[in-house]
Amino acid sequence: MNLKPDVDRLAETIEELGRFGALPGGGVTRQELTPEDAQAVAYLTGLMEGAGLTVRHDPAANLVGRRAGSLGDSAPAVLTGSHRDSGLQCGRYDGALGVLAAIEAVRLLDEKGVATAHPIEVIAFSGEEMSRFGVGTKGSRAIVGRLTPPAMRALVDANGVSYWEALAAAGCRPEELSSRLRTRDNTKCFVELHVEQGPVLEESGKTIGVVTALAGMTHLWTTISGAADHAGATPMHMRRDAFAAAAELALALEEEAVSQGKNAAVATVGDVRVQPGSTVIIPGHVEMSGDIRSTDETVKQRIVTRFRDACRSIGERRGVQVDCRTVIDEPALALSPQIRDAVEATCSQLGIPAMRMPSAANHDARHIAAVTEAGMIFVPSVNGISHAPDEYTTIEDACVGVEVLAHVLLHLAQEDT
Amino acid sequence: MNLKPDVDRLAETIEELGRFGALPGGGVTRQELTPEDAQAVAYLTGLMEGAGLTVRHDPAANLVGRRAGSLGDSAPAVLTGSHRDSGLQCGRYDGALGVLAAIEAVRLLDEKGVATAHPIEVIAFSGEEMSRFGVGTKGSRAIVGRLTPPAMRALVDANGVSYWEALAAAGCRPEELSSRLRTRDNTKCFVELHVEQGPVLEESGKTIGVVTALAGMTHLWTTISGAADHAGATPMHMRRDAFAAAAELALALEEEAVSQGKNAAVATVGDVRVQPGSTVIIPGHVEMSGDIRSTDETVKQRIVTRFRDACRSIGERRGVQVDCRTVIDEPALALSPQIRDAVEATCSQLGIPAMRMPSAANHDARHIAAVTEAGMIFVPSVNGISHAPDEYTTIEDACVGVEVLAHVLLHLAQEDT
Repeated sequence: MNLKPDVDRLAETIEELGRFGALPGGGVTRQELTPEDAQAVAYLTGLMEGAGLTVRHDPAANLVGRRAGSLGDSAPAVLTGSHRDSGLQCGRYDGALGVLAAIEAVRLLDEKGVATAHPIEVIAFSGEEMSRFGVGTKGSRAIVGRLTPPAMRALVDANGVSYWEALAAAGCRPEELSSRLRTRDNTKCFVELHVEQGPVLEESGKTIGVVTALAGMTHLWTTISGAADHAGATPMHMRRDAFAAAAELALALEEEAVSQGKNAAVATVGDVRVQPGSTVIIPGHVEMSGDIRSTDETVKQRIVTRFRDACRSIGERRGVQVDCRTVIDEPALALSPQIRDAVEATCSQLGIPAMRMPSAANHDARHIAAVTEAGMIFVPSVNGISHAPDEYTTIEDACVGVEVLAHVLLHLAQEDT
Repeated sequence: MNLKPDVDRLAETIEELGRFGALPGGGVTRQELTPEDAQAVAYLTGLMEGAGLTVRHDPAANLVGRRAGSLGDSAPAVLTGSHRDSGLQCGRYDGALGVLAAIEAVRLLDEKGVATAHPIEVIAFSGEEMSRFGVGTKGSRAIVGRLTPPAMRALVDANGVSYWEALAAAGCRPEELSSRLRTRDNTKCFVELHVEQGPVLEESGKTIGVVTALAGMTHLWTTISGAADHAGATPMHMRRDAFAAAAELALALEEEAVSQGKNAAVATVGDVRVQPGSTVIIPGHVEMSGDIRSTDETVKQRIVTRFRDACRSIGERRGVQVDCRTVIDEPALALSPQIRDAVEATCSQLGIPAMRMPSAANHDARHIAAVTEAGMIFVPSVNGISHAPDEYTTIEDACVGVEVLAHVLLHLAQEDT
């Protein structure tokens, strides 16, 4: 069956969704549960309804459009989609493309007059990015019961608004979450199309990444306390320079990740705050993030352990106090072999160049995988860029992704696979 | 002659002046030409008038209190004092103690009924700290003709107010500067008492530092541009991490300063700005300060040259663009041997333990030295701390400083030395 998408139609929706939260200098900031997000919801609701879907909000602000199946309403749904929010100064593809690809795929099935046994649900997750509340993938966590009400009230943004309050203000009913969770009974499986966010597909000349696993991810927050003395009057050997210690620690973390072998792990210091932050004062206090990922849990834990060792030894040598706190510790997670096989079979049948690969980024699929089979399809990111204004995926590659997704959905929803 | 100060009186003025700009959590923020500064001016005006001084503002907002001399108004004045402003979250002694010590010294001369040949002027400089306009020692620069009106208009604070506008708003007449400069004709010499801001006097068991020279100081501003990619999806060998490069550069700068030999030089990275500053994004852009000081100009320039070499080599190796701009380049400056000798002779006569030392910090004395003999007297900083809320000098040491200052002023103002 020919399920090639309408190129112009897909390009137009990418363009239009990218307008909500577009920044004057380029790029998109569309944080969850903001006016820009509400504009995106209104736009996506219109698109979904135009595609014949029945639209609802779930209690965690995820927007869901349902296409009925011949087995009736009680049959578990095949779920597809991605997240609709963006981080700060990001692009138009991360998350957004997976939502628009899912809508386009359903349109294609309609245009071919194809009915499926199982219902298909298109989901536009809320709150996948962490920029507003400091924690990501909240829409998927919440809807599978991984966020308790107290935890939702404890997550607070820079203005003191809690995640719970923000949901209620957007018209959601977070108090109904416990009775409306996604389970194996109502969700047959989940397939998420997403941009790779890295350069591997492009470098390998492949159009589709068949995602085998999500890397484990540990987030650390390191606090270094030294002494904020005068930059001129304090001799080098009498300093307790918190930033010099931070610089050593950042390089030690980088070296640990590199030394695990090519592509075995990544580690990043992305957020660094130096106090008091004056040219003429030795930094007395530094806080910095650490992000460590690997598809091999042992490798990830080894890097974390060695970084903690470095905190101790560098702290002692420099006379500064170093505290290292684990903020997030997600283990590596294998995705569904059945969905992987379905994606590979489709690519093989259509003659589309594909390769298996792990995802070093985290995704909503991690949490949906807790209740049902979950898989992911990657399409290439030009120059590997993402979380930046010039994040880009060619419309040709996006169309191939939609075509594969449509075939896979048809396969998963049609039979009792 | 006994010129020991009134301990309680000096302690009280330190306490009272420290209230203007006092922060709830401790420390002082008293930036130039702010309401807190105006309160300090009102207070100091009262103190000066109470000490029998004739008070005026000069066109650069420096507060000046004059004690007449027997040679009449045309004789050049012996100038003493320091600055009245503080940096952000600083202490009660840096600058303030030199102003209060000068007022107390004049009071002592009055109480002893001592007349001097030359007038004595107590000055409370404005704008020695750089926190508001990014450039320090502006009051002293301006009053010796080292700041042109265009330069004064070009210095702008975070709210877009220029230094020139701030002066005018405070009631000063910066347009009169050129006709009211300090010159050798109206200023016989300058002696500034200041806290050491370092640990050397305390470590050496000395109460008075006889300052021989001001260290040369170079300020650099380094901008590093890499690529802000996804922290998970970008392999280590494909990164252009601006912060990793910054960390290497900061450690290279530290190593250069240390390798010049003990106490030969200092170098500091105090201000570091990391963009976009997210845990999950590789830093694409970093800006950071560099502060390099030495009393040996050759040593200072060698460190700067080697740092610039490191910018090139580290930038090339990591594939990031590094630009290093010189913001300030003040050469090392010897202070007046005559004043040094007068301070040493006084300490020797009074049996006060003193030592010669350079100042690694910059001071208003640098600019006054352009037009007349200038010297400095240091008193100890407890634990070497300064530019911090717990900056502290014992009242006993402060009193010794006042006593030495009073004797030195008497010597310099009495005869035609």
